Amino acid sequence: MHLTAKTIPSDIEIAQKARKKPITEIAGQLGLKEEDLELYGRYKAKINLNSWDCLKKRPDGKLVLVTAINPTPAGEGKSTVTVGLGQALNRLGQKASVALREPSLGPNMGIKGGAAGGGYSQVVPMEDINLHFTGDFHAITSAHNAIAALIDNHIHRENELNIDPRRIVWKRVIDLNDRALRHITVGLGGLAHGMPREDGFDITVASELMAILCLAKDLDDLKERIGRIVVAYRFDRSPVTVADLRAQGAAALLLKDAIQPNLVQTLENTPALIHGGPFANIAHGCNTLTATRLALKLSDYTVTEAGFGADLGAEKFIHIKSRVGELKPDMAVIVATVRALKMHGGVPKDELKQPNTTALRQGIANLEHHLETMKKFGLPHVVAVNRFPTDTEEELELLQSWCEEKGVPCALTEVWGEGGAGGEDLAEEVVRLAESKTPEHRFLYERDQPIRAKIAAIAEKVYGADRVAYSAKAEKQIAECEANGWDELPICIAKTQYSLSDDPALLGRPEGFTLHVREIHPSIGAGFLVALTGDVMTMPGLPRHPAALDMDVDAEGQVYGLF
Amino acid sequence: MHLTAKTIPSDIEIAQKARKKPITEIAGQLGLKEEDLELYGRYKAKINLNSWDCLKKRPDGKLVLVTAINPTPAGEGKSTVTVGLGQALNRLGQKASVALREPSLGPNMGIKGGAAGGGYSQVVPMEDINLHFTGDFHAITSAHNAIAALIDNHIHRENELNIDPRRIVWKRVIDLNDRALRHITVGLGGLAHGMPREDGFDITVASELMAILCLAKDLDDLKERIGRIVVAYRFDRSPVTVADLRAQGAAALLLKDAIQPNLVQTLENTPALIHGGPFANIAHGCNTLTATRLALKLSDYTVTEAGFGADLGAEKFIHIKSRVGELKPDMAVIVATVRALKMHGGVPKDELKQPNTTALRQGIANLEHHLETMKKFGLPHVVAVNRFPTDTEEELELLQSWCEEKGVPCALTEVWGEGGAGGEDLAEEVVRLAESKTPEHRFLYERDQPIRAKIAAIAEKVYGADRVAYSAKAEKQIAECEANGWDELPICIAKTQYSLSDDPALLGRPEGFTLHVREIHPSIGAGFLVALTGDVMTMPGLPRHPAALDMDVDAEGQVYGLF
Repeated sequence: MHLTAKTIPSDIEIAQKARKKPITEIAGQLGLKEEDLELYGRYKAKINLNSWDCLKKRPDGKLVLVTAINPTPAGEGKSTVTVGLGQALNRLGQKASVALREPSLGPNMGIKGGAAGGGYSQVVPMEDINLHFTGDFHAITSAHNAIAALIDNHIHRENELNIDPRRIVWKRVIDLNDRALRHITVGLGGLAHGMPREDGFDITVASELMAILCLAKDLDDLKERIGRIVVAYRFDRSPVTVADLRAQGAAALLLKDAIQPNLVQTLENTPALIHGGPFANIAHGCNTLTATRLALKLSDYTVTEAGFGADLGAEKFIHIKSRVGELKPDMAVIVATVRALKMHGGVPKDELKQPNTTALRQGIANLEHHLETMKKFGLPHVVAVNRFPTDTEEELELLQSWCEEKGVPCALTEVWGEGGAGGEDLAEEVVRLAESKTPEHRFLYERDQPIRAKIAAIAEKVYGADRVAYSAKAEKQIAECEANGWDELPICIAKTQYSLSDDPALLGRPEGFTLHVREIHPSIGAGFLVALTGDVMTMPGLPRHPAALDMDVDAEGQVYGLF
Repeated sequence: MHLTAKTIPSDIEIAQKARKKPITEIAGQLGLKEEDLELYGRYKAKINLNSWDCLKKRPDGKLVLVTAINPTPAGEGKSTVTVGLGQALNRLGQKASVALREPSLGPNMGIKGGAAGGGYSQVVPMEDINLHFTGDFHAITSAHNAIAALIDNHIHRENELNIDPRRIVWKRVIDLNDRALRHITVGLGGLAHGMPREDGFDITVASELMAILCLAKDLDDLKERIGRIVVAYRFDRSPVTVADLRAQGAAALLLKDAIQPNLVQTLENTPALIHGGPFANIAHGCNTLTATRLALKLSDYTVTEAGFGADLGAEKFIHIKSRVGELKPDMAVIVATVRALKMHGGVPKDELKQPNTTALRQGIANLEHHLETMKKFGLPHVVAVNRFPTDTEEELELLQSWCEEKGVPCALTEVWGEGGAGGEDLAEEVVRLAESKTPEHRFLYERDQPIRAKIAAIAEKVYGADRVAYSAKAEKQIAECEANGWDELPICIAKTQYSLSDDPALLGRPEGFTLHVREIHPSIGAGFLVALTGDVMTMPGLPRHPAALDMDVDAEGQVYGLF
């Protein structure tokens, strides 16, 4: 079963040849009826959230959290493994679903890729999913910018709320990579055109509304959270919320369809709930709670994914999403590749094709760290080794024997090239773990600890830092959070995904480092305090040759150059 | 049949009680099968443009163009009459459809209203149609702003096309009323963040892409037109197009679903194609050509609407849309109200409730002018008097006898309060005209006339102006258009809708006036030259109390405050 032995077509070629079933049939597999659905064409549907009322008393199926070592430019294929594992579980006769994030349009126009999954482990219809899909992100963009327009209109009128135009923290958003919009001035042109002030655009996925949509239990919860968003400060420095502006009703109205989970399918007709897509640095990086909860009621196994590596994605899945949604993941799958571990062991990207067991052995330290974290969380876990054609038998054996020595289950997967068939070993391990091990869920901090104690708990227990240092600005902001009564919120750390530390160059398992907290950003609607440890890019730019220039559609609607 | 005799519930109350049929059934009425549709829930669908190939050889049904006197703040109800007439034709046993523009989200958040139709002559599901509908406007926003991002990225890189950053004419768009975005500066913040320059946002409906979507025959035509859009000028003043940037493929790809016409229904289950919504001043103000052409093949009567009064909407429907789409309207319905005619006769808005036949007689001159224009176009016509509860019998009789004297068919309608039943008299007149009169289509100018001659033809023959005056800027721009070979395009005049002249205060039938052309804006992709005669607001602002503040949605998804 060597990938080198055959030629794999491109993702879009595979996707366009998929034997998709009508989405009503996929819904039927889950026991959903047509009245539970809002159809979006033949192969997409939204699941009516009202169906939750009938389903909520059912027992939950097993929840499998797919996470990874720290990502590298070598690629780990976490989404691909998530999709492939779902397919494999179905092949074993388990009723499985996958729950994934929606891709963002902006990056698709920039650099190729961004689809959910790849090769023979993809979700379809991929063109739709990667373009407008069911309009969720457009709805967020509208609702976000409607709030922004209401703020500027409020100031332009009598500014009854006494908003300080220099302290508006609610920027505008657009679902595109557009660096020219990062720093702008608005309200120019004279008296009739608003109050001049500095502003900027983030990409839509960075909107706090995205984080809220992904954590809200229902429409009421969504609206209440939106009302709590802090959009600005008054001249006396007191916070102004969306509720102060009376804009939460309109924003929730604009999101009434977006909150309903989307149902599509994988290439092998496994149901896939693809819904929401918040950043995994300034937000928690998981698909919506509504989708995960629904999938748990509708399937025996729900395979879901957290963003970036286990230090960011899994930590936030547990401390933020699971806390809000009372989720009890049954296990974690840690995706690793020989290539990425070699990079963590010091091999530069252009030398990854050469066998190097020494580097691999060193790089395994990164994996080991994440496995220890899973133990701290009380989560049973299995390592998924996502095989690449250039991996040697010797390297694969080294990694597998290391796992065996440590007593950690480990399975080779070839889901990219083989689809679900390439994930059966992993699926068997998952079922075995689910049937034999009971998790002992533990949070590594409590909500009512002081802000610094919570940050320290994550830094030390999850990242392996020795200490945390705060900038003067962060110190001041912590005091402000305490004064505003925001100190009982969970912490969402924005940190480079490439390293366990806040320095992207420190690969492997760095030790003795300090985590530098530069800023605290309160996301009160989402319900967490973001601790920024470095520059976080919330509006990407386009590359020298944007992927958009190669995109096309012909008279028959055939799509070209999307990936 | 007096409206005063009963209380009419609000538009949204009526709409929410509608007995909607599944959209597949509405499509079935038109002879469409489920494979011709992409469903968007139960009550919305897109009609696959591929169905055109089977339909194009069929004969066209009758095309009824609904237009109006110059609008006043008193309200004329043109969309309501369009919907009501469609319903009435169906009641008479005719197979009728209506073709309308999609409402824009932005204004809905600002001032109440904006739905298509009203009372018992509405299209449903109105909440969806007035919010995100099938995502067409969001797709236009994305495609428009993707082109903008590619322009700024091009300049930020090596600027191979030599674009002068001061001469970029492609602004950004957003589907909101947001005055603070009218005049902005982008690209601030240093070297990594683009080239600083002045920019601004228009509302999405003002995008040239909207005009193009509404005039394109199919995806290929759409892509070619997008390629021809002039987005900027080089330092040597030569034009830069979207094709120069190689962005037409990506933009067309983003619009591949948006070009498919939307099918919904009226309160009385008359099929309604609601598709596209360009401005009626800087663009031609009609729904898409694809929707109109499809409706003509699928129905015996297609009732469609043009923007504003007959001087703007009907003129552009004939000179721009009909020319491109080879449409042959069979007749025009001119909507008038006693109230509006009284305003044209000099009565202020707050005195409209008082009977005033003297003012009515004077105001009728406005109607008379538009009737004469219809004659010039060779279009049979009928006056629809849209009755209001405050109209007196004496006033209504005066208007009707005036029509009788002039030999112009005239019918009272009460479609707002009575639905289709209130439009039967009008529908009978329409059928009688369709069966007895053959139009003699005439354009009032030819494409190959010089630019000034074309503008003069519209000003004199349609507006009744004595002469046209050009600003120095316009003179220069006309010379540039000629130098660039753009002089054979039709003209699209941007003028106040309230007056036949370019002065909104000149109501009734002004005479001896000069039309002042201040600027020429080439819309090469849409295929016309816009002659601006005044300040045209392409980005509205929000009022003191935006409608958004009263909007809400409850836990069950019930919508409040939308209209």
